[in-house]
Amino acid sequence: MVRVAVDALGGDRAPEEIVAGALEARSPQIEPILFGPPGLDTGGLELVEAPERITMDDKPAEAVRAKPGSSLVAANRAVGEGRADAVVSAGNTGAMLAAGLLEIRRLKGVHRPAIAVVIPARYGASVLIDAGANADSRPEHLVQFAHMGSIFAEEILERPNPEVRLLSIGEEPEKGNQLVLEAHALLRESGLNFKGNTEARELLRFAADVVVADGFTGNVALKLLEGTIKELLDALREEISATTRGKLGGLLIRPAARGLRSRLDPDTYGGAYLLGLRGLSVIAHGNSSRTAIANAIRLAARGVEKGVVDRLSERMVVDSARPGVPNQAR
Amino acid sequence: MVRVAVDALGGDRAPEEIVAGALEARSPQIEPILFGPPGLDTGGLELVEAPERITMDDKPAEAVRAKPGSSLVAANRAVGEGRADAVVSAGNTGAMLAAGLLEIRRLKGVHRPAIAVVIPARYGASVLIDAGANADSRPEHLVQFAHMGSIFAEEILERPNPEVRLLSIGEEPEKGNQLVLEAHALLRESGLNFKGNTEARELLRFAADVVVADGFTGNVALKLLEGTIKELLDALREEISATTRGKLGGLLIRPAARGLRSRLDPDTYGGAYLLGLRGLSVIAHGNSSRTAIANAIRLAARGVEKGVVDRLSERMVVDSARPGVPNQAR
Repeated sequence: MVRVAVDALGGDRAPEEIVAGALEARSPQIEPILFGPPGLDTGGLELVEAPERITMDDKPAEAVRAKPGSSLVAANRAVGEGRADAVVSAGNTGAMLAAGLLEIRRLKGVHRPAIAVVIPARYGASVLIDAGANADSRPEHLVQFAHMGSIFAEEILERPNPEVRLLSIGEEPEKGNQLVLEAHALLRESGLNFKGNTEARELLRFAADVVVADGFTGNVALKLLEGTIKELLDALREEISATTRGKLGGLLIRPAARGLRSRLDPDTYGGAYLLGLRGLSVIAHGNSSRTAIANAIRLAARGVEKGVVDRLSERMVVDSARPGVPNQAR
Repeated sequence: MVRVAVDALGGDRAPEEIVAGALEARSPQIEPILFGPPGLDTGGLELVEAPERITMDDKPAEAVRAKPGSSLVAANRAVGEGRADAVVSAGNTGAMLAAGLLEIRRLKGVHRPAIAVVIPARYGASVLIDAGANADSRPEHLVQFAHMGSIFAEEILERPNPEVRLLSIGEEPEKGNQLVLEAHALLRESGLNFKGNTEARELLRFAADVVVADGFTGNVALKLLEGTIKELLDALREEISATTRGKLGGLLIRPAARGLRSRLDPDTYGGAYLLGLRGLSVIAHGNSSRTAIANAIRLAARGVEKGVVDRLSERMVVDSARPGVPNQAR
């Protein structure tokens, strides 16, 4: 039985959709525990009282310090103290990172936790890491991201010996900014199944099992992907509904379009892992529906069942001979 | 009459589509001059003999030095020597940059030339700059990119007092990597119509008249945008044609889809400006069709008619009190 601490006050549609999602995810294997205000109707799920709320506009580090009794911080603390196996929140991403560092703490050997998100590419799912936990990174951080992403790909996407590529502005090893050039050289020596650079145009096609980027580039890429998909489908719908003929055509292609939409729907995975902590943390979209929350909780539980944190912990033992680069012992 | 030097050997579809595009662009106002091998059938256009070819796989700086007689280098030289007003090539981007620096040379005060590309956003065209001329940039370079992009927006997109935004991972001024944070502070003092940061999800919607990024991020963003549009439309077509019902619907929505496709088609603008040189340089897509080449030549001619280089030259006079930041005298 996996116990998942759920922040009932996180996200634009809290608490109703969060509670509904938690109820949907409840199963013989999964026990969601809600963190929220006294009196919240949880439909029978366990409630841990945590009345304060961290908003999307709060400054993350300040808010986490100032509101130790908030639902977000309390849910993280439950994982840190072993009362839950994983935490899920659709709240403030920066606050999830700050609370995770404070309450769950980094795994030994991890320089920087990173966000791993599943990209629903056309020819198979990819992991993009770091999708935004770190605004600035050093080359050795990118190598750790690659290791963490590989474990994600092995355990969650079930890819043995996952292929790793580095997001750059050309496939050739000499293409990229200074950070990418140095990371490329380190990745070649990392013992990972590193296949070189990939270009952003491949991301939605299928670039690799694991696509590594610094958190700034990764976040730009993720938001651009999401925004472009949304704008394009919206624009297409607008053009189609401008004429009667188009409207009829639109009705006929609806089932086909629905298949595509469901593949691309962020709700399908529900959330992104924050990897590198001593417990599992899943960050869901701010506007998560109950389906997204249920899937985020299931994603968290899957990570626990697969022992993702233990696998990371084994891999992240720092090789003392090469600071910053985890060894390949496993 | 604007004289445009056209590299007849640049691009995947050279020389046929290049020559055809040049013929299409010829007008009482525009005189294309082709640079290519002896005997090339130019349909009556002037031919300057330049038999060597720089390929897409050539290392840019080396190739430009090793092949001074190549069509790409010779076309750039024609601009440097005043025999043409602008150059257009669908060839190797890095070689266009190297040849431009060598043969056309930087404008006084310009630290780094940058690539300005038009993004066909839903609510109006935007300029993205730098879309990939520089793998690494400093904050003061981004300020110059913003100035160059503003002149592009004024003259080519006809936006008086164009709005400038900086591509980052959040709209708040404190969101971004170190480069963006420093550039943000400089842009506030730049005298430009700077409105703060924008997120990548806005890019295809409409983020600003001018979106500024370092060349690495800008290139990742541009390629991701192009790749995502292509993958999404391909996937939709595939889903639709999987069923008879879908196929019929597809026929009915075709005119609507065509409108969208034509807005998003890179051929519509034909190319990107390489700005910051003492002459105009337009880089077209490697797989440019004749239409793309014709539009790229027209884009080059428009820049000449509008005096883009003179406007840049005035703006780029370096303020000696603040090295690297152009003054606002104009």
